[in-house]
Amino acid sequence: MPDPLRILVLHGPNLNLLGAREPAIYGTTTLPEIDEKLLAAAKQAGAEVAAFQSNHEGALVDRIQEAPARFDGILINPGAFTHTSVALRDALAATGLPVVEVHLSNVHAREEFRRHSFVSPIAAGVVCGFGWRSYVLGLEGLLGRLRDGV
Amino acid sequence: MPDPLRILVLHGPNLNLLGAREPAIYGTTTLPEIDEKLLAAAKQAGAEVAAFQSNHEGALVDRIQEAPARFDGILINPGAFTHTSVALRDALAATGLPVVEVHLSNVHAREEFRRHSFVSPIAAGVVCGFGWRSYVLGLEGLLGRLRDGV
Amino acid sequence: MPDPLRILVLHGPNLNLLGAREPAIYGTTTLPEIDEKLLAAAKQAGAEVAAFQSNHEGALVDRIQEAPARFDGILINPGAFTHTSVALRDALAATGLPVVEVHLSNVHAREEFRRHSFVSPIAAGVVCGFGWRSYVLGLEGLLGRLRDGV
Amino acid sequence: MPDPLRILVLHGPNLNLLGAREPAIYGTTTLPEIDEKLLAAAKQAGAEVAAFQSNHEGALVDRIQEAPARFDGILINPGAFTHTSVALRDALAATGLPVVEVHLSNVHAREEFRRHSFVSPIAAGVVCGFGWRSYVLGLEGLLGRLRDGV
Amino acid sequence: MPDPLRILVLHGPNLNLLGAREPAIYGTTTLPEIDEKLLAAAKQAGAEVAAFQSNHEGALVDRIQEAPARFDGILINPGAFTHTSVALRDALAATGLPVVEVHLSNVHAREEFRRHSFVSPIAAGVVCGFGWRSYVLGLEGLLGRLRDGV
Amino acid sequence: MPDPLRILVLHGPNLNLLGAREPAIYGTTTLPEIDEKLLAAAKQAGAEVAAFQSNHEGALVDRIQEAPARFDGILINPGAFTHTSVALRDALAATGLPVVEVHLSNVHAREEFRRHSFVSPIAAGVVCGFGWRSYVLGLEGLLGRLRDGV
Amino acid sequence: MPDPLRILVLHGPNLNLLGAREPAIYGTTTLPEIDEKLLAAAKQAGAEVAAFQSNHEGALVDRIQEAPARFDGILINPGAFTHTSVALRDALAATGLPVVEVHLSNVHAREEFRRHSFVSPIAAGVVCGFGWRSYVLGLEGLLGRLRDGV
Amino acid sequence: MPDPLRILVLHGPNLNLLGAREPAIYGTTTLPEIDEKLLAAAKQAGAEVAAFQSNHEGALVDRIQEAPARFDGILINPGAFTHTSVALRDALAATGLPVVEVHLSNVHAREEFRRHSFVSPIAAGVVCGFGWRSYVLGLEGLLGRLRDGV
Amino acid sequence: MPDPLRILVLHGPNLNLLGAREPAIYGTTTLPEIDEKLLAAAKQAGAEVAAFQSNHEGALVDRIQEAPARFDGILINPGAFTHTSVALRDALAATGLPVVEVHLSNVHAREEFRRHSFVSPIAAGVVCGFGWRSYVLGLEGLLGRLRDGV
Amino acid sequence: MPDPLRILVLHGPNLNLLGAREPAIYGTTTLPEIDEKLLAAAKQAGAEVAAFQSNHEGALVDRIQEAPARFDGILINPGAFTHTSVALRDALAATGLPVVEVHLSNVHAREEFRRHSFVSPIAAGVVCGFGWRSYVLGLEGLLGRLRDGV
Amino acid sequence: MPDPLRILVLHGPNLNLLGAREPAIYGTTTLPEIDEKLLAAAKQAGAEVAAFQSNHEGALVDRIQEAPARFDGILINPGAFTHTSVALRDALAATGLPVVEVHLSNVHAREEFRRHSFVSPIAAGVVCGFGWRSYVLGLEGLLGRLRDGV
Amino acid sequence: MPDPLRILVLHGPNLNLLGAREPAIYGTTTLPEIDEKLLAAAKQAGAEVAAFQSNHEGALVDRIQEAPARFDGILINPGAFTHTSVALRDALAATGLPVVEVHLSNVHAREEFRRHSFVSPIAAGVVCGFGWRSYVLGLEGLLGRLRDGV
Repeated sequence: MPDPLRILVLHGPNLNLLGAREPAIYGTTTLPEIDEKLLAAAKQAGAEVAAFQSNHEGALVDRIQEAPARFDGILINPGAFTHTSVALRDALAATGLPVVEVHLSNVHAREEFRRHSFVSPIAAGVVCGFGWRSYVLGLEGLLGRLRDGV
Repeated sequence: MPDPLRILVLHGPNLNLLGAREPAIYGTTTLPEIDEKLLAAAKQAGAEVAAFQSNHEGALVDRIQEAPARFDGILINPGAFTHTSVALRDALAATGLPVVEVHLSNVHAREEFRRHSFVSPIAAGVVCGFGWRSYVLGLEGLLGRLRDGV
Repeated sequence: MPDPLRILVLHGPNLNLLGAREPAIYGTTTLPEIDEKLLAAAKQAGAEVAAFQSNHEGALVDRIQEAPARFDGILINPGAFTHTSVALRDALAATGLPVVEVHLSNVHAREEFRRHSFVSPIAAGVVCGFGWRSYVLGLEGLLGRLRDGV
Repeated sequence: MPDPLRILVLHGPNLNLLGAREPAIYGTTTLPEIDEKLLAAAKQAGAEVAAFQSNHEGALVDRIQEAPARFDGILINPGAFTHTSVALRDALAATGLPVVEVHLSNVHAREEFRRHSFVSPIAAGVVCGFGWRSYVLGLEGLLGRLRDGV
Repeated sequence: MPDPLRILVLHGPNLNLLGAREPAIYGTTTLPEIDEKLLAAAKQAGAEVAAFQSNHEGALVDRIQEAPARFDGILINPGAFTHTSVALRDALAATGLPVVEVHLSNVHAREEFRRHSFVSPIAAGVVCGFGWRSYVLGLEGLLGRLRDGV
Repeated sequence: MPDPLRILVLHGPNLNLLGAREPAIYGTTTLPEIDEKLLAAAKQAGAEVAAFQSNHEGALVDRIQEAPARFDGILINPGAFTHTSVALRDALAATGLPVVEVHLSNVHAREEFRRHSFVSPIAAGVVCGFGWRSYVLGLEGLLGRLRDGV
Repeated sequence: MPDPLRILVLHGPNLNLLGAREPAIYGTTTLPEIDEKLLAAAKQAGAEVAAFQSNHEGALVDRIQEAPARFDGILINPGAFTHTSVALRDALAATGLPVVEVHLSNVHAREEFRRHSFVSPIAAGVVCGFGWRSYVLGLEGLLGRLRDGV
Repeated sequence: MPDPLRILVLHGPNLNLLGAREPAIYGTTTLPEIDEKLLAAAKQAGAEVAAFQSNHEGALVDRIQEAPARFDGILINPGAFTHTSVALRDALAATGLPVVEVHLSNVHAREEFRRHSFVSPIAAGVVCGFGWRSYVLGLEGLLGRLRDGV
Repeated sequence: MPDPLRILVLHGPNLNLLGAREPAIYGTTTLPEIDEKLLAAAKQAGAEVAAFQSNHEGALVDRIQEAPARFDGILINPGAFTHTSVALRDALAATGLPVVEVHLSNVHAREEFRRHSFVSPIAAGVVCGFGWRSYVLGLEGLLGRLRDGV
Repeated sequence: MPDPLRILVLHGPNLNLLGAREPAIYGTTTLPEIDEKLLAAAKQAGAEVAAFQSNHEGALVDRIQEAPARFDGILINPGAFTHTSVALRDALAATGLPVVEVHLSNVHAREEFRRHSFVSPIAAGVVCGFGWRSYVLGLEGLLGRLRDGV
Repeated sequence: MPDPLRILVLHGPNLNLLGAREPAIYGTTTLPEIDEKLLAAAKQAGAEVAAFQSNHEGALVDRIQEAPARFDGILINPGAFTHTSVALRDALAATGLPVVEVHLSNVHAREEFRRHSFVSPIAAGVVCGFGWRSYVLGLEGLLGRLRDGV
Repeated sequence: MPDPLRILVLHGPNLNLLGAREPAIYGTTTLPEIDEKLLAAAKQAGAEVAAFQSNHEGALVDRIQEAPARFDGILINPGAFTHTSVALRDALAATGLPVVEVHLSNVHAREEFRRHSFVSPIAAGVVCGFGWRSYVLGLEGLLGRLRDGV
């Protein structure tokens, strides 16, 4: 494994609104704060992270396609695309990189349609329900997997 | 919050076999090794853990019922009961404690029936697919939630 | 019909918690209080009741199997096993005794999965939604049926 | 609670045929006999009942709408409308009165379509399978609930 | 069998409009014309028919309930109630009389929901797709069955 | 198009209760008030309206059948019959008149079974969720369509 | 229309066993007896019939394909192929001839899978439940339709 | 409420083609013409509208996110995204603004998949089937709701 | 029971290919070898077997229909017809003979559609997954049943 | 393969009641009699069997987990657990031993829910419908497979 | 690869009718004309084709079984068997030859049941909707694949 | 038809990765190589092609909308959008041009969700499973259709 490990962090649609809206579901932490927490966690773990948010499925797919050349793994909160985007799934699978899927809220305790994820079957691991901590836990899990090979 | 935080760790059916069988799916770490890792992680985080494994749904329910008096949260890998036990779900919900559900394998990448969990809708968070790390990440998430109140 | 009529009362998983937890759904009456109410109602009706609670499906099945030798009917709140246990259903059907199924809450007003009961199709009658009174009404119905033959 | 409690008893379509037809399913008791039994049971409990049967969904809805002004609760055997009438459900819910749903036969042991009730989710309690006793037990349960407030 | 055989003919909702509307689906024959054809066919077969149409489910149920005292069989086009009325089904089944179900149009070639009939499973026979002839054929079949006992 | 345009306004079951019950869902406006608003709106638009409410499916069907002779369009809130009445659907379709379906509440935000309407597929347009305004908007839409031919 | 009308009568698999087996379901009339009854009925109606039975789907399809040159309509009891053969459906539809589908038993009162017919949607009419009379009634309906053009 | 009320009008994919294509389904009015009609209607009602069309889901989400700062309500025809976009739904819900969903055609009279909308459950109201008038009626409904608070 | 017992052995489509193709699923034993094993097993058990294979559903039905006159039971591997042929099911049921269904492979471990059998519900017993031994075990079971009467 | 082959025989819930109850479905042979028949059959085949029955899912799982050290194969009648226990399935799969599933009755001819087995997909073979002979046939099949390696 | 490549062309039921019937769906080209076009296309590509049509599933299966000895690939239009024949699927899979499935019409634009093909999952490629050209394109694709090895 | 025919070739998301990734599923040919093959094939057929790839659904919709002015037909591999994009379907249908849908892999042999296409029902033809040849065959089919008018 290269050192330091480089992780691409992707945030799906509407996650740029974090902190300002619907805090009852998504918490009060903003997306920049989450990115800082990830930066700090990565630094402490001797890794690097680069984050990108978009409301455009195609923009996320573009980024994912470029990932193999520059990153060792992908940490993604696909947001609403979790339930609807085969394109995202295919792009992630095509990278050959380990992918960790995270969600702020516990998707299993919400509307029925949120229980199905197109991404989960091709992910290495999934974390949900811990608010901003889902990201940090997902990052730890991804780094651990990259370091140990399993 | 009391200090140190006390966490009940529950392992469902067949998890006592870990390490010896089907390592391709479940990894080579044994259950005692996982418990040691949890102990170490808890210690470092200033928390306490007590672990219990059973192949008997009723025995797990009995333990869960006693939890509120002695524990601050529950970390559970319900194993096969994930998909079939309403009793476990009801017992967990009745404790009023935050519950974190973990799985060694990525249940979303296996048989269709493993994608449905009776526990997830009443859990605080879910972690799956990271092997033994799922437990450690779940413990961190649970402790973080207990400390911060969300 | 023998006199006095003897009724086996069975309480499924988590019902030992009654009164202490989730009173909004299950009421504030404890299980011993329910058993007392049943005892009183039985006495008044010239009948006998013996109650047993377990979180273990197998323990309930064991008891049910012994029932034909000692009881004339079974009053059961299968709790969570209502929705998942074919073993309980088969054991009850095998006794050849009339079975009355009761629930404290109105199972039809809760999660969708609680609307299906494996026990109901082989029960003589079903009562739900009256809190502790569901038991007393179920007992009356069972005794009436045993006395009148229909 | 007013004293004596006044209960509206409603019988759905075809229940006027009781006793004369299909006794294997519905028993030999006639509807007037059931009403008498309810009258007697109500009297003994210090309550009043008024019964109404109709094969017309609209006529039942009309009666239900008038209930709040004159009754404290509704005891209803919706018969075939159980499975098909949203109008009845909405009318019952609109009264704001506690509603108890009863069935002579065990609907769960018959055709699959009889296992779904539009009324149950908005009922306080449900009793089925005890023949005419379902009514008496339902009345007891309804009165108990009205007296105790739960 | 009594002689002459007496048949109750029932027409469900909207059949009073026959001939005037949507002739592409239902033909140009009016309901009175159909009744005349039935009268003629019955006369020729030495039988009697009495016809009744209603848009009110309850009115049809009322008539059906009175049938056993005055008729030997029922010929019914339940119209839209075919697909929605359990009350009609139960009333028909309760008569103990042989019931023949007819439809003007071929219900299997129309909307999916028209392929399910609550009446068919308790009917002796079903005829559909022959326009007004469906009635005459159904009458013949019903009379034949009544005369031959099968 | 005749002038003034004449519109039949139909209110399904339980809508006579409007204003008095469950205002959280249905608002505080009463049915007579809605009819007045429609009258005013019609007057201003140079049209006439005649309103009819019934809890009886058959009574509504009867009225619908008479409509072609006296009205140019139908504005209907089928209430609970929306989800259960094929008879209403067939009667409406048979008129050949344009039909507009309205609902006070947003039926898509309530129980799952309220999302299916037998009427919508044969309606010209549908309006829901605007309280009493749904009627006025539906009337405007219907008049517009009648005037412009599309 | 040519005179006399010529009708192809087709009997699907296992219908050659009629009369000898399972008379409780299919009656005691044999297939040759049914063909004689059809012959007599056709004669009386000034028509001709030719009958063919086969247990081979392909043989039935072959016959159906030849029908347009020699017959004016098809009367078919597809037997078990009713529920499984798209080939039969396509062959029948391709003839351009009116097709009447008949069944001895009431298929709606048997196993669920017998309620679905691939043939019904492309048939002119369907008759079931009248034993051998289903054939005669179906023939009458078919001839009537051929003579009247509807 | 601020005065004048400001409404964001959003048109989903392919709506820029309006008038030129498939007029049988969508009418002959062009999108600019619809926007003018909305402008006129808003002006008359003392309100302001700003319209935006895009074939890009992400572009619509971007606009929706900016809406709370500049608009009091959203009028949206999500077009094809109605049936597939959770991102749009989440963005709309996150604004906290009242949303009105409109469709030119009656989506209930077309392909089955068009009967499901991800937007409707979080909308205040829905209007469909009135061609360009759906927009104007939706605007009126939205303004009414904003002015009256319900 | 006659002596020796005579058993008809039927092999469905593609079973003539056994041994030569797809041995990973179906084993390397050829169909003649299986027939020899059955012959030997029958001889040892004092019974007689006659085997027939066909890729033609109709040919199998023909044979089944002749069985009652010459055989005491049927041992059948319906192959692909298991999942699609109601004709075979009806023919087998019509014989009145006990039928044993066998499969070489474990059909439950293959494609989902192979888990449904039209034959199983009317079979006396089913054996699958033992390769050629499925036949021998099925024969033993069939003979045992014929000898013991259950 | 070791000699003699050792087979673990497992009986699921309610099978201890065999012979005494519901003989119409399960036959009159008792469980000890079945075990004796298995002992005799094993002896004759030069094998050993050890039998265990439990109504407790957990107890069966415990036994299964110990099997690899002492047995060469497992013969199991999971009884009611067939349809509900993923724990049993996982335990059986984890042993790595060949598993044969047997049922006394033909599960395909009973309630629909009995047609689904969690065990079958991981079993080597399945036998059902032969009463006590299902066990003996299953044992033969298992021994054959163990001896021949397929 | 042998040279010239030999392709078996199979036409399912009712395809012998091509050109004469339902040209709106299937075109005006006859089957012999299609075979000629295939012959010409094959010749030009240095390949050989042999065509066979049958309305008998078994006859097609027989031919398919003989194919491996004489052909290098199979081009099949299974017609109605596409949706119903597992026997065809199994026969095709058993050949080990590459199979190309073609349809004249676009099966996805017709009845829902025509969207499911038992053949497609085991085919190398599928072509539909191009009329007779579907065959020629399918042949080209098959030859290309045979020549290039992919 | 204009000469030369002009075809718009559209490649959906992730198809720009072709050749480099997952060659086991998608082959080793790159997208530029496919475009060259199409160019050559078009040239030889006297036609012109212009190709466009995008990971953005909106960008593809934009291009499709411009097609009628410049192209005679559309050849599209919608990639992952096949299964999720109603917007693409609607845009394609709105062009009024013939559309041919192609897929490199056989979508019927992969995950279940890949068997459903929103595009197929409005396509003229579909080709899948031939790798890069799917495009060339699709082009041929499209040109043939444009030239012959069917």
